[in-house]
Amino acid sequence: MSKEISEGHVTTPAGFSAGAAAAHIKYPDRLNVAVVVSERDCTAAALFTQNQVAAAPVLVDKETLRANNRRIRVIAANAGNANACTGQPGLDNARATQQIAAQRLGCQPEQVLLLSTGVIGVQLPMDKLRAGIETAAAHLSPKNGLAAAQAIMTTDTYPKHLAARVELPGGLITIGGMAKGSGMIHPDMATMLAVLTTDAAVAPDVLDGALRAAVNASFNRISVDGDTSTNDTVLLLANGASGVEVADDEAMGLFGEAVTAVCAKLAQMIVKDGEGAAKFVEIQVTGAAGDADAHAIAVTIATSPLVKTAFAGSDANWGRILAAAGRAGVPFDPNQTALWIGAESVDELQLVRQGTPTSYQEADAARIFALPAFKIRLDLGAGDGRDLMWTTDLTHEYVSINADYRT
Amino acid sequence: MSKEISEGHVTTPAGFSAGAAAAHIKYPDRLNVAVVVSERDCTAAALFTQNQVAAAPVLVDKETLRANNRRIRVIAANAGNANACTGQPGLDNARATQQIAAQRLGCQPEQVLLLSTGVIGVQLPMDKLRAGIETAAAHLSPKNGLAAAQAIMTTDTYPKHLAARVELPGGLITIGGMAKGSGMIHPDMATMLAVLTTDAAVAPDVLDGALRAAVNASFNRISVDGDTSTNDTVLLLANGASGVEVADDEAMGLFGEAVTAVCAKLAQMIVKDGEGAAKFVEIQVTGAAGDADAHAIAVTIATSPLVKTAFAGSDANWGRILAAAGRAGVPFDPNQTALWIGAESVDELQLVRQGTPTSYQEADAARIFALPAFKIRLDLGAGDGRDLMWTTDLTHEYVSINADYRT
Repeated sequence: MSKEISEGHVTTPAGFSAGAAAAHIKYPDRLNVAVVVSERDCTAAALFTQNQVAAAPVLVDKETLRANNRRIRVIAANAGNANACTGQPGLDNARATQQIAAQRLGCQPEQVLLLSTGVIGVQLPMDKLRAGIETAAAHLSPKNGLAAAQAIMTTDTYPKHLAARVELPGGLITIGGMAKGSGMIHPDMATMLAVLTTDAAVAPDVLDGALRAAVNASFNRISVDGDTSTNDTVLLLANGASGVEVADDEAMGLFGEAVTAVCAKLAQMIVKDGEGAAKFVEIQVTGAAGDADAHAIAVTIATSPLVKTAFAGSDANWGRILAAAGRAGVPFDPNQTALWIGAESVDELQLVRQGTPTSYQEADAARIFALPAFKIRLDLGAGDGRDLMWTTDLTHEYVSINADYRT
Repeated sequence: MSKEISEGHVTTPAGFSAGAAAAHIKYPDRLNVAVVVSERDCTAAALFTQNQVAAAPVLVDKETLRANNRRIRVIAANAGNANACTGQPGLDNARATQQIAAQRLGCQPEQVLLLSTGVIGVQLPMDKLRAGIETAAAHLSPKNGLAAAQAIMTTDTYPKHLAARVELPGGLITIGGMAKGSGMIHPDMATMLAVLTTDAAVAPDVLDGALRAAVNASFNRISVDGDTSTNDTVLLLANGASGVEVADDEAMGLFGEAVTAVCAKLAQMIVKDGEGAAKFVEIQVTGAAGDADAHAIAVTIATSPLVKTAFAGSDANWGRILAAAGRAGVPFDPNQTALWIGAESVDELQLVRQGTPTSYQEADAARIFALPAFKIRLDLGAGDGRDLMWTTDLTHEYVSINADYRT
């Protein structure tokens, strides 16, 4: 039994194909409409934004999956327009999109799931979207997984995709994935779309359990800017084309691990390509009274503007890290705290012991903070609670991108 | 009965004097040590940071005020070094500072309160601090209120101070105030020091009540970057030198209103001089189910990096405002939301009605967002709950200042 993560796409698993089109929605010369199509009915699981202001495609997908999570065939996605804050016309447009895709791809509207990302508060340009879906459907191929990953990008600088091959007791299965991220990235789902496909045969409740566990250990552990979007969606489709069933405990365990590994890689890609991000930082919190305490502190550190600007400046300013931890709403004794920094192939350097600085050399700390990827570990000396977050630095580029994204 | 807010300092009330010195702590050529001295014993009230990682002067002030809140004589302040994360030596240095100030100014150590702001994790340079306090004490004068306000600045670009004259039933009293802010500014007290003085005679519990109400309506309504510091302190001293007592309900009401007005002005000065801030924005949330809901949403909007970069870009991106509101952890119906923007001498412009955009002109909205000060009002259409926050934009300057503050 083994798991191999490699190059690949949502069309790497058997029985999936994709098509993409440049539909002139916001971005004139880029692919921005995609369809992902299974030749067989799929079981489906999904997780959506917790934002009260949920976009129309989120509302329609929830409704669709409540009625049908065993016969999904198509995902229709667009970038450039989020179809959020669009009221009843937005819902009508989302349902019309299902109909257009169903008609073109020979299935029922309730077999179509939707993904949208982009500007808020603008109605979808339905003529352009219809033309885009028609073009995408006309170019359907198992070779177009990369094009689909490109078509969901907004301010992403590269497409995010991969695949995993997993040897289950019953045979080999494949999981493919793609995602987009960039801004409004924060736990509880961010402006983040991800699609996972597999040719395993998986019952909806098993699929749902695997996806929840995977998202909790991956997409819910990342933050670019603390802002949660209106459109976050992760979809997992299983079409059974491999003939391999995920039914017993061993297969479920292996399948779940593989889904988590794929999600973790996609989540890390999203952070590394976060808006303006130059650095990838893992925040580990250990020694907390419980995991929830550790999580609250890790999130507060991972979203602190002062901590993230210190990352940008390669300034190992541990005082800001402790100050952020101290405002997380979790009681702890500052005199029991310890803090280390480190990176791959660099020894951990202890900066703080019992709440005060060690005699470390500033130059050694600055050298680690100047790396493109490093880790921070804060131990509270209280218990066994632990958590981690993946985050970025806060840079001039982030401000530039977001001070005039819409205009 | 009237209240007049004007130019003034902590030494404007009768019986207070101040001195300042350039003690070469971090900033070589700037005033960075100050003493504020009352010629009579003062009742005192104080509020401190809620951060778990509280600095030594905060811990020592709390201890001092538990033993003595009726005979305070001196505030000894320094900028450039926060005396935070300094362990037992830091506490020893704080107590030694009380002794130095007491000896020089002819009082007991337990009559001295401390304020420190600046770098975290570095022990106070006690020789320089001692010399600074000696110099400041040697220049004691009622004319040095401005110098004291200058001496507590760090990245502040101007000193913050004012005074209010209040006609009470028993006669005229004066309230003076100074503050420093800049970064790590967020509700629950920020890296924010403020000193209020009055020549009214006020019992400690009355003083405490007035200060709590005032801080709740002022310093706890501001956010520059969402980071709460280890040193936030607001002190209010009343020396009774005016001979006017604040004892009956009418006087207490008027006194409380005046303290709130002084704190609100100082809080607004702090936001306007926030690190890198080019704009002052009032966020009003109305129509919430309750005030706490309104507050949670106002804080989330006021600290959203995407909202604050939109302010910087003069982009009236109301979608980001609604998206931030939606992740505040407060349930509401997006279809009932309405949003207006406005400014002094500009009519309110409604951007959103029932969760979707009105037919406003983008240029009109951009014109308001380009102003140095403007207001946003989000109505949830649910109840009578309301709250407001004062915040800033997130600019390149903020990143520049904080990417290399320490180095």
